[in-house]
Amino acid sequence: MILTRSDIDALPSRKRAHFVNSCVGYKSANLIGTKDEHGVSNLAVFSSVIHLGSNPPLLGFILRPRTVIRNTYDNLRSSGVFTVNHISEENYKQAHQTSAKYAPEVSEFESAGLTEEYLNDFDAPFAKESPIKIGCRYINEYYLEENECTLIIGGIEFVQFDESILNDDGWLNLEKSGTAVVSGLDAYSIPALLDRLSYAEPGSEPKSIL
Amino acid sequence: MILTRSDIDALPSRKRAHFVNSCVGYKSANLIGTKDEHGVSNLAVFSSVIHLGSNPPLLGFILRPRTVIRNTYDNLRSSGVFTVNHISEENYKQAHQTSAKYAPEVSEFESAGLTEEYLNDFDAPFAKESPIKIGCRYINEYYLEENECTLIIGGIEFVQFDESILNDDGWLNLEKSGTAVVSGLDAYSIPALLDRLSYAEPGSEPKSIL
Repeated sequence: MILTRSDIDALPSRKRAHFVNSCVGYKSANLIGTKDEHGVSNLAVFSSVIHLGSNPPLLGFILRPRTVIRNTYDNLRSSGVFTVNHISEENYKQAHQTSAKYAPEVSEFESAGLTEEYLNDFDAPFAKESPIKIGCRYINEYYLEENECTLIIGGIEFVQFDESILNDDGWLNLEKSGTAVVSGLDAYSIPALLDRLSYAEPGSEPKSIL
Repeated sequence: MILTRSDIDALPSRKRAHFVNSCVGYKSANLIGTKDEHGVSNLAVFSSVIHLGSNPPLLGFILRPRTVIRNTYDNLRSSGVFTVNHISEENYKQAHQTSAKYAPEVSEFESAGLTEEYLNDFDAPFAKESPIKIGCRYINEYYLEENECTLIIGGIEFVQFDESILNDDGWLNLEKSGTAVVSGLDAYSIPALLDRLSYAEPGSEPKSIL
């Protein structure tokens, strides 16, 4: 079946959000941790963290123009740093709970049942229960005039993970880390590895390199 | 273990790319289809397609400053349209093969073994084998000065999918569509649905809404 732009626009807003959020495919599932000027920590679910480049190592994520997420923005601008923590099969319920609208003086760590952790003298909080943790420095932002969202660019300062998930060629095995993905607004899934394929060349078929 | 920025910078370039590309979590797996002024179609793997908003329905993706991908850019700027096609467990090998460096006059559809399809009088090619297909209009772009990438913003014109994957509340069941995810540069995985959780509220635990 086909849903056109006018079909989509005519949907009730919650149904439209479920549909459009799920049609682009699975999204990464991360918790972003920050701390305000008074030392109150904040932790929020983001399904828009993307790889931007390896040299220099950069990632990005999208901030919606909403109250609960502005905490993250204010904090990362005042402190200059934030953390990215993988949501996994072990912590996805607690991670989801951080999206409840808590008062600004309440830390989502304690309220949602996750443990605040500090690593490597970094001034932003990590979620101890996450299998992969990234310390990031704020680099830049781009305001997207189409819908008042902001793309935040972060520079990767360090990555913490269990040595057992690191492959010889630098690839991290996210099946071993139990990393989750999100589809739509509220669905959590766990990927199972199908294959790794050789670098594609014209005239030959890709081979398994697992 | 911890890898710091200087550890990452010191890695050989391919190993660094594998590591940084996999540390942010799973990425969406899509083929972007375009057509040039002479009618030659182009199809390329992108792991950076993200949801940007539901009202209006917008998505985005990142273009790297590379030759093979500039085809996509030139085509979508000249025609004003492009398609987004889910990579799935059925087509991931062919999808991966589209990343081989074919000459500009060669269509990746035929070379990689995928079927060019036209839907809804739209002037950009779809991959028939994809379970979810999105027709998009070019809206805007943002040049990211940090690493010469470009964020392309597309407006969703229509979405084609099998009715059996559409839930009553608008959510598309991507487990039923067999949609894949990418980790790193070359690993394809298939997610299995764990749960859908109720809208989070302070003071109550999220419940399954499956």
